[in-house]
Amino acid sequence: MAHLDLQEIEKLNSRYRANFINSITGYKSCNLLGTRSSEGNSNLAIFSSLLHIGSSPALIGFVLRPLTVRRDSFNNIKQTGQFTVNQVSSEFFKQAHQTAAKYKEEDSEFEAVGLTAQYLDDFKAPYVKESQLKIGCTYKNHYLLEENGCILVIGAVEHIYFPQAIQDPDGFLELNKINTVTAMGQDGYALPAFLGRLSYARPGSEPNFIEHGS
Amino acid sequence: MAHLDLQEIEKLNSRYRANFINSITGYKSCNLLGTRSSEGNSNLAIFSSLLHIGSSPALIGFVLRPLTVRRDSFNNIKQTGQFTVNQVSSEFFKQAHQTAAKYKEEDSEFEAVGLTAQYLDDFKAPYVKESQLKIGCTYKNHYLLEENGCILVIGAVEHIYFPQAIQDPDGFLELNKINTVTAMGQDGYALPAFLGRLSYARPGSEPNFIEHGS
Repeated sequence: MAHLDLQEIEKLNSRYRANFINSITGYKSCNLLGTRSSEGNSNLAIFSSLLHIGSSPALIGFVLRPLTVRRDSFNNIKQTGQFTVNQVSSEFFKQAHQTAAKYKEEDSEFEAVGLTAQYLDDFKAPYVKESQLKIGCTYKNHYLLEENGCILVIGAVEHIYFPQAIQDPDGFLELNKINTVTAMGQDGYALPAFLGRLSYARPGSEPNFIEHGS
Repeated sequence: MAHLDLQEIEKLNSRYRANFINSITGYKSCNLLGTRSSEGNSNLAIFSSLLHIGSSPALIGFVLRPLTVRRDSFNNIKQTGQFTVNQVSSEFFKQAHQTAAKYKEEDSEFEAVGLTAQYLDDFKAPYVKESQLKIGCTYKNHYLLEENGCILVIGAVEHIYFPQAIQDPDGFLELNKINTVTAMGQDGYALPAFLGRLSYARPGSEPNFIEHGS
């Protein structure tokens, strides 16, 4: 087994270290963040840091790096108070990846990569038409992470769109049925195969597979 | 397509809503958090909120809910300043799930679920011997998320252990080669199949698959 300690990690060159350290946390969520400026310019950015924060109230969070193109996204969110989250599927993960290219501020990533902006229920921020699970969020708060200048953005979930057929009777969504992908490192993608759901863990009994939330 | 707005989301009963809202962010990382109290009691807890925070310095973060058994983990981290992160593979995801059972404070989840505590390089917190990718971290900081009382814990990566054979020449780790699983919702698991890595996105060119970081 290879072992690197802090001294050895710090000696790695920055590109190698970025590939490596981005890999160690495991598989990540893979979503497109849709925003719109007050002038009406739409922006679309892939990100792998979306995090469940709470169910009641329904809150999500994501991390923005201090200096990236995604500051467009943050500026838009601060201007309009809204953003959308759109799950990436294996049918369009290449287009999703391409949103990371440094397009000019006035160019829309939607047109540039070949995805379709969709406006639903009077929400100002654009959804991705090709995405089968999409969330409309309002900005709640942000936290500056002093350790490296990143920003954790907290959003409240206000709209959820998804195909009813992927939902178990107890609310769980079988994301495998819409080919949602997962992100690896900075540039890797994988398509998960569902292993199953396990029963509520209790001392003294072993977890079993449960079916459809029964 | 089903659509729920905020009013409808708030009307859902709490168990259904927890299953549902925990599903919408997509696939999650799946790791075991190993800690030890100053009295020497070891603790092991599954968690799906591990997040990449930065590569330089190498930082990770995770979210603790306000009132869970995992407060044992947080108390231990505050006492010793150390914790380990251990990727869960398909070989032991049932044992990993079982760590969520409410064992007594003095009982070790390692023994209760049948995983092996391993102490490496004088680190006080226990690793999971069965895990093939493990990280030794020191506590750096935490942020109270005012929106729901959750805590974001920030840790510095000080040790990384992994099989050299899964690493591409440019640092990327092929997690599929060690059967790392990904978490879905509150109780689902999936095993990702690697689709590949895509080339650096640039305006005007389409992303292609790259091989082994070349």
